[in-house]
Amino acid sequence: MAHTINTEVFLAFSTYATIVILKMMFMAPLTGYFRVTRKAFANLEDTHLAKTAEEKKRMLCVNEDVERVRRCHQNDLENIVPFVVVGLLYALTGPDLSTALLHFRLFAASRFIYMLAYVMALPHPSRPLAWMVGMVTTLSMSYRVLTTTLLL
Amino acid sequence: MAHTINTEVFLAFSTYATIVILKMMFMAPLTGYFRVTRKAFANLEDTHLAKTAEEKKRMLCVNEDVERVRRCHQNDLENIVPFVVVGLLYALTGPDLSTALLHFRLFAASRFIYMLAYVMALPHPSRPLAWMVGMVTTLSMSYRVLTTTLLL
Amino acid sequence: MAHTINTEVFLAFSTYATIVILKMMFMAPLTGYFRVTRKAFANLEDTHLAKTAEEKKRMLCVNEDVERVRRCHQNDLENIVPFVVVGLLYALTGPDLSTALLHFRLFAASRFIYMLAYVMALPHPSRPLAWMVGMVTTLSMSYRVLTTTLLL
Repeated sequence: MAHTINTEVFLAFSTYATIVILKMMFMAPLTGYFRVTRKAFANLEDTHLAKTAEEKKRMLCVNEDVERVRRCHQNDLENIVPFVVVGLLYALTGPDLSTALLHFRLFAASRFIYMLAYVMALPHPSRPLAWMVGMVTTLSMSYRVLTTTLLL
Repeated sequence: MAHTINTEVFLAFSTYATIVILKMMFMAPLTGYFRVTRKAFANLEDTHLAKTAEEKKRMLCVNEDVERVRRCHQNDLENIVPFVVVGLLYALTGPDLSTALLHFRLFAASRFIYMLAYVMALPHPSRPLAWMVGMVTTLSMSYRVLTTTLLL
Repeated sequence: MAHTINTEVFLAFSTYATIVILKMMFMAPLTGYFRVTRKAFANLEDTHLAKTAEEKKRMLCVNEDVERVRRCHQNDLENIVPFVVVGLLYALTGPDLSTALLHFRLFAASRFIYMLAYVMALPHPSRPLAWMVGMVTTLSMSYRVLTTTLLL
């Protein structure tokens, strides 16, 4: 397997893995933005902008906009981690560049659409559909990894 | 280190890493199944099956069965990610195939038992015990990685 | 790219990736410690030390100290996973050993300081500052990966 590394496929994997990881990292400042504008924090030491003790206490609350971004971040973790792991192993099985690019592009697109659908609360079934596309892409790569490398 | 890649160990790693990642991905449809059967959703746009606004509101709730699956999913993230990362580096240190297989099999088995123990709420200490086996496996591989590659 | 592997950089990556993953794994027993000492559990089967049914019920609660450690664990997942993925790809782009070590050391230090700042509730802005250093380190490595490997 190590001998069949297709350098171009690996470059493509590097590019798309980094892009989706950056997309996931973007959820952190987005959460911060909503926490500050909605005045909804999780830790007392984060309410340093409040003037009174009462105001500090009021800022320790759960806000639906913040939770929405956090759920999207969590879903990124649950889906982007499998993509990166399986994608790396998949790239090492020596697939065609065009097939690999199709998988990587579909997955990356699905996660950007998923984020928009979640944060903007787009109507059903936009979000589950975007999620499903990413899931199927990763499952398809898993299938190739298992059929190529199976050693139990 | 790059020269000591044992191809068979790497194939075994690919197989088991993909298996535990697929197991982790399975938690997502399982959460969906419990959300639909328990009618417990997190987003208003997910309650599209409700007929009245009041019913929609009632569906936005926290259900203990759903939370149980979600906690198991979270624990997968917290344990399978370390296994995959350390396991990859471990596979590159050129261990014996039999030793490597022992680590990979123990870890994979521990995560399947952990899932059953969590979702079926098996009595103490089945769940912490399964968790511990996975943890020790990853720590044992970390020890080999650090003693082989240490460059601070 | 595969031909430019700088073995020393890869050894350094292995070392630091394992160290930050071990740091992340340490959050699990720390959560357990706070759950036991604060008597705050999430599952009924975990309250096996209670004698009466009423005491069991009282142990199923949310404790702020436990939540603090859990939020820190979550933040580790959200930041250490990107570091490990991008760091691996970065190590394969063949950077100088000294530059790579600077990135790895800064990131590892930032995560240990972040943990102390979170668990000990150090005053603002110690925690966001530590978080920011880790974030910038990963972004800097992402930039090199994308400019070296870009294949869309």
